[in-house]
Amino acid sequence: MSSTEGQVIRCKAAVSWEAGKPLVIEEVEVAPPQKMEVRLKILFTSLCHTDVYFWEAKGQTPLFPRIFGHEAGGIVESVGEGVTDLKPGDHVLPVFTGECKECRHCKSSESNMCDLLRINTDRGVMIEDGKTRFSKDGQPIYHFVGTSTFSEYTVVHVGCVAKINPEAPLDKVCVLSCGISTGLGATLNVAKPTKGSTVAVFGLGAVGLAAAEGARIAGASRIIGVDLNPSRFNEAKKFGVTDFVNPKDYDKPVQQVIAEMTDGGVDRSVECTGNVNAMISAFECVHDGWGVAVLVGVPNKDDAFKTHPMNFLNERTLKGTFFGNYKPRSDIPSVVEKYMNKELELEKFITHRVPFSEINKAFDYMMKGESLRCIIAMED
Amino acid sequence: MSSTEGQVIRCKAAVSWEAGKPLVIEEVEVAPPQKMEVRLKILFTSLCHTDVYFWEAKGQTPLFPRIFGHEAGGIVESVGEGVTDLKPGDHVLPVFTGECKECRHCKSSESNMCDLLRINTDRGVMIEDGKTRFSKDGQPIYHFVGTSTFSEYTVVHVGCVAKINPEAPLDKVCVLSCGISTGLGATLNVAKPTKGSTVAVFGLGAVGLAAAEGARIAGASRIIGVDLNPSRFNEAKKFGVTDFVNPKDYDKPVQQVIAEMTDGGVDRSVECTGNVNAMISAFECVHDGWGVAVLVGVPNKDDAFKTHPMNFLNERTLKGTFFGNYKPRSDIPSVVEKYMNKELELEKFITHRVPFSEINKAFDYMMKGESLRCIIAMED
Repeated sequence: MSSTEGQVIRCKAAVSWEAGKPLVIEEVEVAPPQKMEVRLKILFTSLCHTDVYFWEAKGQTPLFPRIFGHEAGGIVESVGEGVTDLKPGDHVLPVFTGECKECRHCKSSESNMCDLLRINTDRGVMIEDGKTRFSKDGQPIYHFVGTSTFSEYTVVHVGCVAKINPEAPLDKVCVLSCGISTGLGATLNVAKPTKGSTVAVFGLGAVGLAAAEGARIAGASRIIGVDLNPSRFNEAKKFGVTDFVNPKDYDKPVQQVIAEMTDGGVDRSVECTGNVNAMISAFECVHDGWGVAVLVGVPNKDDAFKTHPMNFLNERTLKGTFFGNYKPRSDIPSVVEKYMNKELELEKFITHRVPFSEINKAFDYMMKGESLRCIIAMED
Repeated sequence: MSSTEGQVIRCKAAVSWEAGKPLVIEEVEVAPPQKMEVRLKILFTSLCHTDVYFWEAKGQTPLFPRIFGHEAGGIVESVGEGVTDLKPGDHVLPVFTGECKECRHCKSSESNMCDLLRINTDRGVMIEDGKTRFSKDGQPIYHFVGTSTFSEYTVVHVGCVAKINPEAPLDKVCVLSCGISTGLGATLNVAKPTKGSTVAVFGLGAVGLAAAEGARIAGASRIIGVDLNPSRFNEAKKFGVTDFVNPKDYDKPVQQVIAEMTDGGVDRSVECTGNVNAMISAFECVHDGWGVAVLVGVPNKDDAFKTHPMNFLNERTLKGTFFGNYKPRSDIPSVVEKYMNKELELEKFITHRVPFSEINKAFDYMMKGESLRCIIAMED
């Protein structure tokens, strides 16, 4: 039993008081975990675009003050009532979406969209009692996607915690909490290219490069990266990307460019930008007869995906995926093992490191497009 | 060796001289099969909507005089140069699309869209020499989709001929040449419902009922038939359809009606009308997390399939299929076996029978919506 079990913990957290304003490191109070919750000591966290998106809060309902952060690695400090499969000391990755193991989605082999714990970006409180576990001087501070890892301690529903190999270095595998698994799983679990096949990846940010890494692991013979920013190609080579297409370089649709490069289309494509025109291109660039396109990037509210239905009738498949179709508790531990056995390379995703006190630098790097992943070390 | 081998055969054929005008039984000349061709004696043929569509020739380039017909059962009369896997006497089903066994599609386990022999409705001649094998008094008569089974004898590319169990009754299994296999395969090969799952079928014509038959064979617990014509429900019950939805009975979209009936959506749907709004409904009525929708019906030239991309991101899949993803030569013999071992019921599809001399009656039945399949017996 840890000495802090059942007690309020006072610790440092990076609080976002206002949309778009630098985070402030504050001393906050973290309440003990309630029923089916665990309290984690976070050791490393990293920054993902989704944090920046909701921190900017352009277009969403703003919810402040809030503690962001959802890619992280940590250790269980204490567990609440009813938690049986985690104990203090376990090494874990918190995940922004959950797995209750009871609902139809969790019981389906095809879905990871848990009815109870599916991502909810509008909710800033815990499910159990509708309250926050964070406060400062009595003022509640909202949670973010149930993880809020920009804090030395956080409280998470047990269904959003993956127990991993305690030998895995948390400063590396913490990136598997979100973006990297999302891209990797989109390729390995959904697009499923076979050895020797051709794969197009739209968008060469961290998620797209993780999709390319998946294609490399699957043994793709050719990986075509599509991006409007040509400076990304050099980095992309490390991830197995063999060809680069900048749609701006052509006066014809990129799907036509790719079809001409590949004698009719690629075997698989993965769309990681969220731009609806890129989605249409990603679908239309796959080969008839067997092509499969997978959508990963999140579209805008009013977007419409539009194509001629004959593109489907000619035996093309279009699928979407969420978190790479990984079930957080059941599947993420095995992704960590892929890293441990050197099948999956994570180091190349980690371009920057900062101490917790300099967390705002991580935001700067990402907003300037300089970083793939910036690791934030909680203990300086 | 048959006595007619290498000779021109004079026989009866139902010739379509002009778009939309009754067929005329004529004595025609059928030339011997050329390289990679076989000449078949047709015993039974049936009428499919596609025959009617191209006979009406509204909107397509008219190609007349022509011999229609593409669902049939027959016996090989003689074979041309290079044909090694068929011999006179073999029982066969000619198929409107082919399998050359050499191209990338034929070599792919996922495709049946042969590069060489894929359906071509505009071509009225044989591939080998660009000529017809039919003529009357020296005037060439065009072929239809490489089969032209409304003739006592016809010439077909060997890649468009499935050799089947000689014990199979040709007056039943002839319907497997096109529509029934198309619907059945859409469910069994593409939608792949598991035992106990829910399946929606849009359009309860012969193809849709074959899709329902596939769902019944797969052990679906609930099969929801969607059609604008309520008179089809009674017949549909024979095919395992348990629920009937007429979109006209509701003032909300049919996808919403189905979602409410099924606690969020069906596991699988199969669209057999070709109407683009039905396609959108068929996609949007499948459950998030695992739903798969399959498009079978052929759309109009200017249709646009349109949906919000989040419908994909929430882990729905949309696929199209052609001829139920069956490879004609490799797979159709096993569909015949499904009938022979009583897994698949064909009798219920056969609503009418006429002698060859009354072939125009088969057109009347279909155009009035009275028939599912009308068998035309070549020998009265």
